[in-house]
Amino acid sequence: MSTASAAAGEGPLAMLCGGGSLPLAVADRVAAGGRPVVLFPLRGAAEGIAVERFPHHWVHIGQIGKFLRLARAAGCRDVVFIGSLVRPSLWQVHPDLKGLRLLRRVLAAYRGGDNHLLSGMGKVLEDEGLHLVGAHEVAPEILVPEGRLGRVQVSERDRADIDLGLDYLRTAGRFDIGQAVVVAGRHVLAVEAAEGTDAMLARVAEMRANGRVRAPRGTGVMVKAPKPAQDRRFDLPSIGPRTVEGASRAGLAGIAVVAGSTIVAELEQLVAAADRDNIFVVGVVSGIRS
Amino acid sequence: MSTASAAAGEGPLAMLCGGGSLPLAVADRVAAGGRPVVLFPLRGAAEGIAVERFPHHWVHIGQIGKFLRLARAAGCRDVVFIGSLVRPSLWQVHPDLKGLRLLRRVLAAYRGGDNHLLSGMGKVLEDEGLHLVGAHEVAPEILVPEGRLGRVQVSERDRADIDLGLDYLRTAGRFDIGQAVVVAGRHVLAVEAAEGTDAMLARVAEMRANGRVRAPRGTGVMVKAPKPAQDRRFDLPSIGPRTVEGASRAGLAGIAVVAGSTIVAELEQLVAAADRDNIFVVGVVSGIRS
Repeated sequence: MSTASAAAGEGPLAMLCGGGSLPLAVADRVAAGGRPVVLFPLRGAAEGIAVERFPHHWVHIGQIGKFLRLARAAGCRDVVFIGSLVRPSLWQVHPDLKGLRLLRRVLAAYRGGDNHLLSGMGKVLEDEGLHLVGAHEVAPEILVPEGRLGRVQVSERDRADIDLGLDYLRTAGRFDIGQAVVVAGRHVLAVEAAEGTDAMLARVAEMRANGRVRAPRGTGVMVKAPKPAQDRRFDLPSIGPRTVEGASRAGLAGIAVVAGSTIVAELEQLVAAADRDNIFVVGVVSGIRS
Repeated sequence: MSTASAAAGEGPLAMLCGGGSLPLAVADRVAAGGRPVVLFPLRGAAEGIAVERFPHHWVHIGQIGKFLRLARAAGCRDVVFIGSLVRPSLWQVHPDLKGLRLLRRVLAAYRGGDNHLLSGMGKVLEDEGLHLVGAHEVAPEILVPEGRLGRVQVSERDRADIDLGLDYLRTAGRFDIGQAVVVAGRHVLAVEAAEGTDAMLARVAEMRANGRVRAPRGTGVMVKAPKPAQDRRFDLPSIGPRTVEGASRAGLAGIAVVAGSTIVAELEQLVAAADRDNIFVVGVVSGIRS
């Protein structure tokens, strides 16, 4: 069974949910399309999500046996992994028997970057006969299209910053670090690594406030792109209204992401926030594809 | 007159001083070698330095005429630029007549990264017949040698992190961003851009505290290297006791810098801090040379 036919969807969709607003946004769209959804919110990551709106079973990340049993019992063959997941400590894994048997593989995966951790989990599911599909395959509307999303336009100066940012992300991508960078006046102000996009934007706001960054407010772009080796099935970069708020506080002109390779949660709220704060949000075509 | 003979030293040395502990450390060593020193502390950068210990004249960064006049009157032909300089806003430049005539060039330089700004200032001085020399040329003792500086040794695991960090810095160097990176378990935790090394280390400490970074304390290395295109005369990376304190708070195993291309301020205090906090500090050989 190819991924494409899996994406077409047979039976209910199992969704392993990390944090953030994406899991419910995707679940809503899939359910609206008539496909039943069963959520498996991950302890330590998905707390605070309104999972009660769907059939759901809380699992620890190590409870692979429990997950497989419940997913099969619900008739699920396709699995989506969606949402943010801060790398768990070993004390949070809580493996069950099946999980213990697979723990060695997970541990091997754990030694590399996030990509390796997630790829390791993906292989485990595939070996158990489940089909891991990307959130964008079950809900293609969540992908950012090419062009601008709100009313604010991209200037020539912004384009130069976007190009430099994409160039950097392409170059640094093989190090499996962050997915985002802030560029203003063709000068790299901040690079995302383990701290995440929101923390990076907060840093730029702080540097503007304390005078370390002198670029005038309303200049500079946050550029976000998938890592070159990224597995699109569970690790596409994402933006949402909070990203716009962070960019606004950082005094940026806008946000550029790779069209067709970026997930947007809460599109309407994002556009409203961007228009209100006079921030552009644009999907660009880039050599970065995974 | 070649740079080498200028470095040999004729007449008093003019020192344009930014912030931090380096300017006085270099001035002390040069003076101890019998060469007179005239300090030109930069307003907005060098406040808090005990410049009173030497003949000195406070200047704004744009007061190039004043600087040239005073430096020549003091018999200086060699100029060292040393210390940290947060990019000044145009309102802080305070150009004099000479400065105004050179302002267009400085402004052109200002549009690029820090390297371009500093290179632009260097060219201006050279055109006026002054010889810009590197701090390491007048005080070679301030360069980090190859090998470890304190008693703590580098493990095999640390070496893998150091290699990855050097590889990253070499790769990202053409973007004229920061000079440092933190790597733990071959995973890049933080990349320095405009925020500076101390702020990057504080971020790693914060990520350890809030659980975002799970690598055990006592693992991970801060790697610092010159940018590939860096002008060694005024922009070598530097470390000092505060760097060790930052690395210690970040829970790192140690600090690796490029031997012969890194300035160390207050070596004895740095070694004492490293030994006390069980942190290694090592000068490594790298392909990064400028």
